[in-house]
Amino acid sequence: MTDNHQVVVVPEDLCEALVSRADAFQAVEQVFAAMASGDARNFPVVREATGHAEALFGFKSGFDKAGMALGLKAGGFWPGNADKGLTNHQSTVFLFDPDTGRLQALVAGNYLTAVRTAASSSVSIRHLARPDAKVLGMVGAGHQAQFQLRAAAEQRAFEKVVAWNPHPDMLSKLEAVAREIGLPFEAVSQHELGAQAHVIITITSAFEPLLMRDWIKPGTHIACMGTDTKGKQEVDPELVAGARVFTDEVAQSVQLGETQHAVAQGLLAESDITPIGEVINKTHPGRQSDDEITLFDGTGVGLQDLAVAATAAKLAQQQGKAETVRL
Amino acid sequence: MTDNHQVVVVPEDLCEALVSRADAFQAVEQVFAAMASGDARNFPVVREATGHAEALFGFKSGFDKAGMALGLKAGGFWPGNADKGLTNHQSTVFLFDPDTGRLQALVAGNYLTAVRTAASSSVSIRHLARPDAKVLGMVGAGHQAQFQLRAAAEQRAFEKVVAWNPHPDMLSKLEAVAREIGLPFEAVSQHELGAQAHVIITITSAFEPLLMRDWIKPGTHIACMGTDTKGKQEVDPELVAGARVFTDEVAQSVQLGETQHAVAQGLLAESDITPIGEVINKTHPGRQSDDEITLFDGTGVGLQDLAVAATAAKLAQQQGKAETVRL
Repeated sequence: MTDNHQVVVVPEDLCEALVSRADAFQAVEQVFAAMASGDARNFPVVREATGHAEALFGFKSGFDKAGMALGLKAGGFWPGNADKGLTNHQSTVFLFDPDTGRLQALVAGNYLTAVRTAASSSVSIRHLARPDAKVLGMVGAGHQAQFQLRAAAEQRAFEKVVAWNPHPDMLSKLEAVAREIGLPFEAVSQHELGAQAHVIITITSAFEPLLMRDWIKPGTHIACMGTDTKGKQEVDPELVAGARVFTDEVAQSVQLGETQHAVAQGLLAESDITPIGEVINKTHPGRQSDDEITLFDGTGVGLQDLAVAATAAKLAQQQGKAETVRL
Repeated sequence: MTDNHQVVVVPEDLCEALVSRADAFQAVEQVFAAMASGDARNFPVVREATGHAEALFGFKSGFDKAGMALGLKAGGFWPGNADKGLTNHQSTVFLFDPDTGRLQALVAGNYLTAVRTAASSSVSIRHLARPDAKVLGMVGAGHQAQFQLRAAAEQRAFEKVVAWNPHPDMLSKLEAVAREIGLPFEAVSQHELGAQAHVIITITSAFEPLLMRDWIKPGTHIACMGTDTKGKQEVDPELVAGARVFTDEVAQSVQLGETQHAVAQGLLAESDITPIGEVINKTHPGRQSDDEITLFDGTGVGLQDLAVAATAAKLAQQQGKAETVRL
C-alpha cells in the first residue's frame, strides 16, 4: 500500500511573519507547564561533530501529549556559514501525527529557535523577577541577544538597559534595539552591571564565569541562557549556589547547563533545582522573598521547538497561508 | 537574515517508481563499505515509547563522508495504523547539506525502508553464500518477507523456495511472489527447512529461537533480519556461536541484534563479529570454507536509509521528476 499524503510547509519568512513574541511566549510557557505536570517529555538529545566543515549536528525531540506535538528539531552549528551569507545556526523542525506517525509539517527553524529561546528567559522573568524591576542587564551582544532584549523588555516596566560584552564594539547593535523600543542604553563594566541591574540575561558562548557572586545585588533575577554544552559557563558557581535555582529541564541543566559546575563542585544538589513549570503550575511558589536572588538556567529543550513550530503550522493553516506538499 | 531555500521532495509513489532493487543494493553495499573503512558513521539511535497509540517513535541518523549524505530517518511503529488503511511502520528520511546544515531533501521512507532492508540480506548473500546455493529458505511471511524474497532470489541461481511461518496461512502471499519470479515453493517444517536450505533468511518479530543449531546443514548462509530490539531472538545462540558471524554494525548487533544472546551467554565475543563492509572492501576474506556456516546479523542502520534516500533524490533530479518546495 502506498501512503502518499499532504504535508504542511512553513518557510522561514512565513514563520517570521506569523509567530509573534507573544505567541512564542504562550507556546513555551504552556509546554514548560506540561513538562512539569508530566504531560510532555523530551527524548534523549543527539549531538555529534560530523568531522566535516567543523559542524556540530544533532536532534532535540519529544512528545507533548497535552499539546499533541510529536517530533524533532534537527540542525546544528556550521561556523563557515556566515561567510556564505547564511546563518551559522541552522534548524529545521519536523512535526509528526501522534496518531499515525506520518509527517504532518515541515517548519523552518532558524527564526523560531531565536524566538523560543527569548521566550524562555521571558517566561522566567514573568514568573520570578521582582515586579518593581527597573534596570535590565544584558551580558552578550550577538544575534540572539537582540531577541532576548526585545522579549525581556515586555515583561517589566524597565527604565534602562545596561550591557556588557566581551567584544565591546558589538554593543552598538544591541543599543540600536534598545533605542528602537525606547529604553536608554548604557555600556558598563561587568561589576557595574551587577550593581545596577534588577534583571540580568547572560547570552554568550563563554567557558569562564563572567559575573561573580559578590557583584550581584539581593533581589536580582538572572537568566543564564548561553550554556548548552559541557564545559561552557557564564557565571560564578557560588552565585548559582547562593540563588534559588530554576530551569527548564533539571536533568539537562545538571548535565550541560549552567548548574553543571555548581553541582560538580558539590555546591548545589540536583534536588535544589526546580522546574520552572512548577512555578507556572503554581505547585511551587517561585520567588520567596524580595531579597533572594533567583536564577533560571535556560538549557533549551526540543519541546520548546515543537511548541513554537506547532504554533507556526496552526497559524499558517488558520490564515490560509500554509503551503502543502505531497509526500 | 532570512534563509529561504528550495528543498527537494520525493513522495512515496515516486520512490517506488525510481529506486530499483539494484539501486538499493548498490547504495547499501557502498555504505557498508564506507562504514568499514571509517568514512561513514552512525549516530546514537533514539527509540522511545510515546505513551500514545501504543507507538514506538525514534530516529536513526549518521553521516557518510564518502557519499556526502547527512541526515536521519524518523519514524516508528504504530500498531493501530493497519485498521486505518495505513502502514504500521512509518518512516520519513531527511537529508541535510553537509556543507551548510540546510535541509536538502524530504524523502518518503516506507518503501525505501523495505527495499534497503532487503538489500542488506542480499549484500550478505552476494558476499557470503556458497556460489552453488540452490534452495532458499524463508522464515517469516510478512510484508517485509516479500521484499526479502525478491531481492535474495536475484543473488544465486536458486531452484526452489522452502518456507515456514508461525502463522502458516500467511505463506500464501509469499508463495505468490515465488511463483511470480518462477520459483517452486514448498511450505515445510522448521526442521525440514534447515535440512533443505542453502541460504536462509529469518524475518520475524520472534522472541524465541525458531531455528536450532542441529537443524542447519554445513555450508549454509543465514541472514537474521528480524531482531532489532533487546529481547527479540530468531535463532539458537549455539547456532550463532558455531557460525562465522558478520553484521552491519558490530556495536548495534551485540546490543540489540541477533548476536545479543550469544554474547550475553559468553558463547561469542564482540571481537568474533566482522563488519560485512570488510568483506566488501576485501580486507576480510568472508567465507573461508565450503562447510562453514556463515551468519549475517542485519540490524538496520541509519546510514542505509540515508543511502537509499540520497539515491531517490538523485534519480528524481536526474530524471526531472523532483518536486521542490520553498522552506
